[in-house]
Amino acid sequence: MTDQLLNDRDLRFQLFEILDTEGLLKRPRYAELDLTVLDATLQTAREIAAQYFAPHNQKGDANEPTFDGEKVTLIPETKIAWDAFASAGFLAAHHDFEDGGQQLPEVVLRACMAYFNAANIATLGYSFLSIGAANLVKSFANAELRQRFLPPMLEGRFSGTMAMTEPGQGSALGDLRTSARAAEDGSYRISGSKMFISGGDHELTENIVHLVLARIEGAPAGVKGISLFLVPKYLVNADGSVGARNDVALAGLLHKMGYRNATSTVLNFGEKGGAVGYLVGEANKGLGYMFQMMNEARIGVGLGAASLGYQSYIHALDYARNRPQGRLPGNKNPLAPQVRIVEHADVRRMLLQQKVYAEGSMALCLYASTLVEDSHTAPAAEQRRQAAELLDLLTPVVKSWPSRYALLASEIGIQVLGGSGYTREYLLEQFYRDNRLNPIHEGTEGIQAIDLLARKLGPRGGDGYALFLSRLQASLDEAHTRKDCSSLATALRTAMQVIERVTIEMQIRVSANPDLGLSNATAYLDMFGKLVVGWIWLRQALAASHALTSRAAGSEADFYKGKIHAARYFMDWELAGLQGQARLLSTGNRLCYDMQNDWF
Amino acid sequence: MTDQLLNDRDLRFQLFEILDTEGLLKRPRYAELDLTVLDATLQTAREIAAQYFAPHNQKGDANEPTFDGEKVTLIPETKIAWDAFASAGFLAAHHDFEDGGQQLPEVVLRACMAYFNAANIATLGYSFLSIGAANLVKSFANAELRQRFLPPMLEGRFSGTMAMTEPGQGSALGDLRTSARAAEDGSYRISGSKMFISGGDHELTENIVHLVLARIEGAPAGVKGISLFLVPKYLVNADGSVGARNDVALAGLLHKMGYRNATSTVLNFGEKGGAVGYLVGEANKGLGYMFQMMNEARIGVGLGAASLGYQSYIHALDYARNRPQGRLPGNKNPLAPQVRIVEHADVRRMLLQQKVYAEGSMALCLYASTLVEDSHTAPAAEQRRQAAELLDLLTPVVKSWPSRYALLASEIGIQVLGGSGYTREYLLEQFYRDNRLNPIHEGTEGIQAIDLLARKLGPRGGDGYALFLSRLQASLDEAHTRKDCSSLATALRTAMQVIERVTIEMQIRVSANPDLGLSNATAYLDMFGKLVVGWIWLRQALAASHALTSRAAGSEADFYKGKIHAARYFMDWELAGLQGQARLLSTGNRLCYDMQNDWF
Repeated sequence: MTDQLLNDRDLRFQLFEILDTEGLLKRPRYAELDLTVLDATLQTAREIAAQYFAPHNQKGDANEPTFDGEKVTLIPETKIAWDAFASAGFLAAHHDFEDGGQQLPEVVLRACMAYFNAANIATLGYSFLSIGAANLVKSFANAELRQRFLPPMLEGRFSGTMAMTEPGQGSALGDLRTSARAAEDGSYRISGSKMFISGGDHELTENIVHLVLARIEGAPAGVKGISLFLVPKYLVNADGSVGARNDVALAGLLHKMGYRNATSTVLNFGEKGGAVGYLVGEANKGLGYMFQMMNEARIGVGLGAASLGYQSYIHALDYARNRPQGRLPGNKNPLAPQVRIVEHADVRRMLLQQKVYAEGSMALCLYASTLVEDSHTAPAAEQRRQAAELLDLLTPVVKSWPSRYALLASEIGIQVLGGSGYTREYLLEQFYRDNRLNPIHEGTEGIQAIDLLARKLGPRGGDGYALFLSRLQASLDEAHTRKDCSSLATALRTAMQVIERVTIEMQIRVSANPDLGLSNATAYLDMFGKLVVGWIWLRQALAASHALTSRAAGSEADFYKGKIHAARYFMDWELAGLQGQARLLSTGNRLCYDMQNDWF
Repeated sequence: MTDQLLNDRDLRFQLFEILDTEGLLKRPRYAELDLTVLDATLQTAREIAAQYFAPHNQKGDANEPTFDGEKVTLIPETKIAWDAFASAGFLAAHHDFEDGGQQLPEVVLRACMAYFNAANIATLGYSFLSIGAANLVKSFANAELRQRFLPPMLEGRFSGTMAMTEPGQGSALGDLRTSARAAEDGSYRISGSKMFISGGDHELTENIVHLVLARIEGAPAGVKGISLFLVPKYLVNADGSVGARNDVALAGLLHKMGYRNATSTVLNFGEKGGAVGYLVGEANKGLGYMFQMMNEARIGVGLGAASLGYQSYIHALDYARNRPQGRLPGNKNPLAPQVRIVEHADVRRMLLQQKVYAEGSMALCLYASTLVEDSHTAPAAEQRRQAAELLDLLTPVVKSWPSRYALLASEIGIQVLGGSGYTREYLLEQFYRDNRLNPIHEGTEGIQAIDLLARKLGPRGGDGYALFLSRLQASLDEAHTRKDCSSLATALRTAMQVIERVTIEMQIRVSANPDLGLSNATAYLDMFGKLVVGWIWLRQALAASHALTSRAAGSEADFYKGKIHAARYFMDWELAGLQGQARLLSTGNRLCYDMQNDWF
């Protein structure tokens, strides 16, 4: 079994041949960095992932966290991995020097995270949530709170969670019922139950900082009455020392299909009268703040899915290259030697599918990370604005496309190995189980679809869509001038025209009748995602085409030829059904909407 | 959580409104049966499944079989379920009265099996294999062997397995290396290793009868030198009593993603010089015999997939009807009451997809069972021949379509429940894990595709394809005359024309260059499967249309309307991409074939 985590060559291709990560070094924020530092950081991530995360991936799955009524017990490797991650500075890597960070560019941090995801996504869960929680504290908490909680979070002494979902409300955040009552000292007393809180309890850190959505007594109903609170597991004294236990209790652990080494918890706040919580930012603006974290987390979920799909691809490819079995159909001689299964065309089909899903997902998520980057640090205000608009449009795709298709890469990985893929003696089935969470958390696929169609493409959406089309058009124009890319451009241009037409029709339908118009939103999201990832593959093919013309030979040339071939596969096979599906949306097919409960 | 196993109303619809199971009672073999007996048998199956199989489904998953080096231990409920199944006569149900059977029609037995599959497919595994093994003994073993082994197998004192796969050979049966050496007493000594043998060891029965493929020393290479042997775990004395341990050793248990309560084993034959084995039928004809079992098993695998997809649908529907969450997009009033999630169009989309996959798979498998039935007991020789030919054509579809799409129904079931679907507190994730085996065992999807295209539609294929087209045409003709079915017929006729054209083109390509032509076989199988299941849905819509015209009202009318609506969904959404995909096959797209190992 291979211990490779990602294809380093592909990661270099993405970072330095497509995304111009080197160009970031010219920005003032990165003046003190150079390529050597970026390389060393990536290498450190790969090494820590390989040394401290990957070795207990199966063990953590087989020995999930337990709760004895007092404490949660994890396998000890989890704590060692957490400490290694924190010591190497990854919890703070993208933060300012003055906060103890390394001012690492977003895209490089995400590439590092991809190694950890690939090695052990469950153990990484604690860090993933903590990074997001610390970003929220940094962005919205007042100076006093920030001073008290941010340093230990960035050092890894405290971890963090995001506590949104409740048992009775699920995706409908406006219905949350956790309440906050103002106390005399300016803090609040929080009461209520939260569910599916990842990393909600454990003994990895001295303290856990829950960022909790709750409703201040008397606040408006719905999403406009939601505030954000910082609720620590243990109170923190003014001198920063950890004090008494707060009124936050672990009601129980949930037992999951995968992601098992990450605790998923039900937390009860205020069983003894109210947990001490501190308002973050202004009252009733909590959902907006949380959306910052959720938007980051959506890219993180996409990247997690991409990384697991990538691992599945790497493992399946390794197996297919080493496992002899059977002969080609045209060879009827039973005494001829067996071939490796990669020689069977149907196995290559599966591997090619995995490649376009996994590498396409990874490329998409890293591209999105550069939009995050540019929205903050691009030199010109208009560049920053455009990046933010594009990111806003693409976030539901970045979350949902890998969650669907990189998950499919994991599913196909099982099939490549056949019976072996179905056993826990190999990692493939675990990759699938871990990956299966991704279409669910941080907003299900259906919710991403509504976000795209009703918000991002709705009347109050920005110009991200126009920007996307113009960037796509620029790539198409370039591709038309290159012999090995022009057929790709032709296929993708057709898809673009189809989707432009469907988009207008969908927008009209949604504004006329949102319930009916949105009933086909998920099909639209899938279609739109194909156009976006088609573009991502076209960009890769273009870069490969340039490299092949100018210099590549040997295994380098093979790498680039593989990219162009995979792009062709995407355009031919993945876009094949597009026109037929578009017709359903164009004609406003009502079958899902019209289906009656009693007819099931 | 619901404890419903199947939709009994749908099962009645399939058996008595579509398949004319009642008509079977006119055949001489079934002269002693009547409708009451059939109903009672179905009810017994449902009750035993509910009482003895379903309650330990989760427990068996959480507490998989263990092997201490001496014995395999299963949770005790497994033995109780085995005994209940055997006592009720299900191991022998379809056998002749003179063998202790009940001469139950095949399709009724399969419907019974669907209940057991739905309740606990892992525990049923032991019975499933034993029934197949007993059929082989009955069909091909000589009188002496049959007399010694068949009665205890039908009574449930002995169980059975099929031992084909070996560690080094996987799907390529021609390469198997297990050897058989003739002994002086006319028996053989078997030596070799078998892998992925389900039910290969346990203590449920006094003895286990392994049906083992092996190569007699000096036999031809490849598939033409394979013989079938009966190799018991314990030798059986002439008086039928169980004697000494045979030289068959459990090398170890495999640990699977699902199906956990069914042992999957590595067996070593002949570690001490050779296991005693008895030749079944003639030497070197073993693969042909085994194919009888495999053909039955392929329908069984399809049915298993269908049953699990069906359970997933039932559980998701129950959840969606009971779980309140959010409001419709058009309702912006946060004080309005929450709706049940079945009210959300996107949830109905998922449930509708589940319905067409699950009910379509079930209908397909039951239809195939009537072909098995007719091939044996139809009054006219030509009817028997036609049924056998059609069955031959459709078997790869019956195996693979449910394995792909009823599995997808299980996958969607997780999504309907969201976070809850991802936890082991609900059954959905287990249904998926159990179901994930089905595209692998009894021939992977890729192997079914080659079987369909190279064998069934190849130059030596029968006239099953012509028969299928003419039956499909008859349904289309009928549907065109009915107002509520004519649009279905129009859509399906287009699909038929597309596939007829593609089929001819594929046949030409395969015969010109099998390696290249078969490289798109899996895509062809998928397309062909859609036509077959489209027909299955059209048949259901037709029956529903007649019922609606003549008599149905109330919940009966709802049932039939649901069938017609689901058929519409199938024609619109499932066939939407067909033309685009067909173009790839028609143009002989070479991308999978041309992909180079070094380009990955």
